[in-house]
Amino acid sequence: MCANAEEMAQFQKEISISEFFEKNRHLLGYDNKIKALLTIVKEAVDNALDACEEARILPDIYLQIKQVDEEKYEIIIQDNGPGIVEKQIPKIFGKLLYGSKFHRHRQSRGQQGIGISGVVLYAQLTTGMPTVIESAIGDGNIHNYKLRIEVGRNEPKIVEKSTNPETEGWRGTRLRFVVEAVYREHKQSVLEYLRQTAIANPFANITFDSPNGRNEFKRGIDFLPKEPKAIQPHLEGVEIGILSRMAHQTVARTVENFFIEDFTRVGKVTAGDICSKAGVDPKTKPKSLTHEDFEKLIKAIKKVKLINPPMDCLSPLGTEAVISGLKKELDPIWVDAVVRSPSVYRGWPFQIEVGIAYGGSVKESKVMRLANRVPLLYMAGDCAITKSVNQIDWKNYKLSSKDLSEDPISIFVHMVSVWVPFTSESKEAVASYPEIIKEIKLALQECARKLGLFLSGQIKAREVHERKKTLEKYVDDIATALSNLSGEERAKIEKAMMEMIKWRWGDIDEQRDGKEPKEDG
Amino acid sequence: MCANAEEMAQFQKEISISEFFEKNRHLLGYDNKIKALLTIVKEAVDNALDACEEARILPDIYLQIKQVDEEKYEIIIQDNGPGIVEKQIPKIFGKLLYGSKFHRHRQSRGQQGIGISGVVLYAQLTTGMPTVIESAIGDGNIHNYKLRIEVGRNEPKIVEKSTNPETEGWRGTRLRFVVEAVYREHKQSVLEYLRQTAIANPFANITFDSPNGRNEFKRGIDFLPKEPKAIQPHLEGVEIGILSRMAHQTVARTVENFFIEDFTRVGKVTAGDICSKAGVDPKTKPKSLTHEDFEKLIKAIKKVKLINPPMDCLSPLGTEAVISGLKKELDPIWVDAVVRSPSVYRGWPFQIEVGIAYGGSVKESKVMRLANRVPLLYMAGDCAITKSVNQIDWKNYKLSSKDLSEDPISIFVHMVSVWVPFTSESKEAVASYPEIIKEIKLALQECARKLGLFLSGQIKAREVHERKKTLEKYVDDIATALSNLSGEERAKIEKAMMEMIKWRWGDIDEQRDGKEPKEDG
Repeated sequence: MCANAEEMAQFQKEISISEFFEKNRHLLGYDNKIKALLTIVKEAVDNALDACEEARILPDIYLQIKQVDEEKYEIIIQDNGPGIVEKQIPKIFGKLLYGSKFHRHRQSRGQQGIGISGVVLYAQLTTGMPTVIESAIGDGNIHNYKLRIEVGRNEPKIVEKSTNPETEGWRGTRLRFVVEAVYREHKQSVLEYLRQTAIANPFANITFDSPNGRNEFKRGIDFLPKEPKAIQPHLEGVEIGILSRMAHQTVARTVENFFIEDFTRVGKVTAGDICSKAGVDPKTKPKSLTHEDFEKLIKAIKKVKLINPPMDCLSPLGTEAVISGLKKELDPIWVDAVVRSPSVYRGWPFQIEVGIAYGGSVKESKVMRLANRVPLLYMAGDCAITKSVNQIDWKNYKLSSKDLSEDPISIFVHMVSVWVPFTSESKEAVASYPEIIKEIKLALQECARKLGLFLSGQIKAREVHERKKTLEKYVDDIATALSNLSGEERAKIEKAMMEMIKWRWGDIDEQRDGKEPKEDG
Repeated sequence: MCANAEEMAQFQKEISISEFFEKNRHLLGYDNKIKALLTIVKEAVDNALDACEEARILPDIYLQIKQVDEEKYEIIIQDNGPGIVEKQIPKIFGKLLYGSKFHRHRQSRGQQGIGISGVVLYAQLTTGMPTVIESAIGDGNIHNYKLRIEVGRNEPKIVEKSTNPETEGWRGTRLRFVVEAVYREHKQSVLEYLRQTAIANPFANITFDSPNGRNEFKRGIDFLPKEPKAIQPHLEGVEIGILSRMAHQTVARTVENFFIEDFTRVGKVTAGDICSKAGVDPKTKPKSLTHEDFEKLIKAIKKVKLINPPMDCLSPLGTEAVISGLKKELDPIWVDAVVRSPSVYRGWPFQIEVGIAYGGSVKESKVMRLANRVPLLYMAGDCAITKSVNQIDWKNYKLSSKDLSEDPISIFVHMVSVWVPFTSESKEAVASYPEIIKEIKLALQECARKLGLFLSGQIKAREVHERKKTLEKYVDDIATALSNLSGEERAKIEKAMMEMIKWRWGDIDEQRDGKEPKEDG
């Protein structure tokens, strides 16, 4: 025998989350050097936008990517947010699974507390360079940190620390990473991510100094979207493990109050109803509930009619912003948008909005996927959004191909939620909950119907146009024949006929803008 | 302004890895109740097989799945492994990111230290029930634990603990979970997982009492595969962050010895070569290396010819075992297997073996994906194995369709490695490293060529058969004509002709076994 229980025990050891992701970096989006650069920019820009929005500041984001060696880049990202208080800097940047968003149920770009510290980890892994963080919180100083992550302990290690006077009235956060990466401008690139970010965040100014020159994405509107509220958990989909943990942590003194205070949209009637269906005295102390009580409560919750969570925790862009974003960036001949009413999956509120841009500068089909205003560029095949688009037979909406392969169409699908269920830590695809797919499809269909009306108008116009052209061709012969038969003047007959055609078929050519989409085959 | 830096700081908080996976349970394979059941069985059976194999014991696994309520199942898994020492039980089962396999570079089914504690987490989340663990390590006792995970701290919480005398000579581990789940027998089910496990682990006996009755997977061979050795990291693909961390932790006193002792397959010559190319004195203390030294060393490593890692850390099944497994479970008319030589990705040794079974009881096309002897049933589209299969034009190998859609073929692809790069924590798909895809394709092509020879033999046989039939049709007429012309006896001519045909085209019908695959259209 080679190993007994004692021998095997010696290898048992704790694994730090930093070690875990260092070895499994592809789970965070660092599969290769091109994607790594996008992941870094995405994490940093998402954080910057979140910080500004949370502080109700119109974002001015500056991004610079500079090549410093073969496959080695320096990335600088600066925002005009509120800055970060000194004592929080090390943990926010130097500890994985640390952050402000995981425990709050509120719509934001970040949610896991892994993204930005993941960048610090990747930088030190690939170039050995510490990350530089500068923060100005309005106390007249800029606080500078150089830090690393102690991988084995998942704790920040401060390499250097200093404070300089702030002299230019700047407030915000500036980050500097040096990483192994490759810069490319293709369809899954930093540039494409910024372009889509500009569409979904028209209130942000983004300046990007790339290795190939400056790109500016100017602010389109001068106001922030309404601030999403944080909410308590909702009872729908709550599981026994969560319920019992919450009951042990609550400050409420009775089960009834526990339901009312710790969950959203539970009133005295609902709480009483749950307790009575479960046969649990509403005045019971939450901490003294037994396992059997929890089982009964969970069953009772499933039987009670629950009110949907409040929807002010969600902040979609709205039809106007979607339309103006698509117009601004894509210049189509037709554009429209649909915002669905909020809905719920597993107790989490979410909302879908869809925009479609057709023709004009749009030359081929493309699906833009976004979650909480963040463009998703990878893992399309895995995403509930792609699946929903593929489940629709687009021919029903007068498009020329079932799968859009031959149509000049850009589809913009945006999911907002207090908790987006991503298929991986790299947050590239939305998990396929049936409720989510259903909402996306309904939104797509509604918007597609509008497009269908436009396209069938175009098709009809084209048919009418053809008919008119055909008739016009014969006017000459018919007029001559009629003139011979009736002895009437030929020119008079011809004029009457042309007027009849115009009256009957309209002056089609004048109604059309000539921008009609090219028809293949 | 809504929030300043101070206000925002109050929400910053550490997130425990248990909380993280509780909320992101789909990352661990708990997307839905059907898949959840498979995930649980997979984690438990994988652990049981690993424990037995590591202790060089032929595994006897007992699995029972019993419905106890609507969508609620009790799952019992018992092995005959070495058992687990008492003090390790709580952490192994009650702490995520804890285990023996992450820090050892050795081929095993488990590698992350998340799987089995993830099951405990899922059980308590969905039913509130603690997990029961019984372990017999040969000291005459059975140690019983009931435990939960304290989610907020990611620490085990022992609910109950007892010791009973062991009276039946049993040694091993027995687990009992009660979970919310749904049992189904379809192509991604527990039964299919066990069937493929039986093929890839022919040395294991597995008894499964399902809700529908008993299934037995009998041991096919009476010996374990050779024991894979643990190895040191390899220099290929080592990054500066890892190198500098290892240098600070090493017990070696010189850089030269650090390379020799802490990495696999580095001798004095290679170590000296690296140091000289980097301009670093080989006698430098590893701890006193500067950032610049590390940068130079990393560059030097890339220039030095490295010897491949040793391959005794890998333990593929081998052609015989693959063939016998496929024969036993699938009963095809043709079967063969190919085992490639070991190869390396990012410094990790890996090896690919492929088996193909054709016709007979195989009625349609199917790809079985396995990694370190574990069948992968979900996320096929994301997997390097599926991609490799799809990149091959199977018509080149005499199959009737390019994508196998019309062929009766089962393809078995097995990757073994000291570190399989999975695309998610649920370990359902292999990440698409080019080196891995290349090896899989080469193995597939080599095996497909053999199948192609068989199939073209079959095709040729069929052609010959047709020709013979055609000739035979004319024998009668020709014999009569020749007899009239020559005056020779007709019967004699006919006999001579039949013999000629038999000599020329063979007695084809006797050579064929009549099992030839049906040809469509």
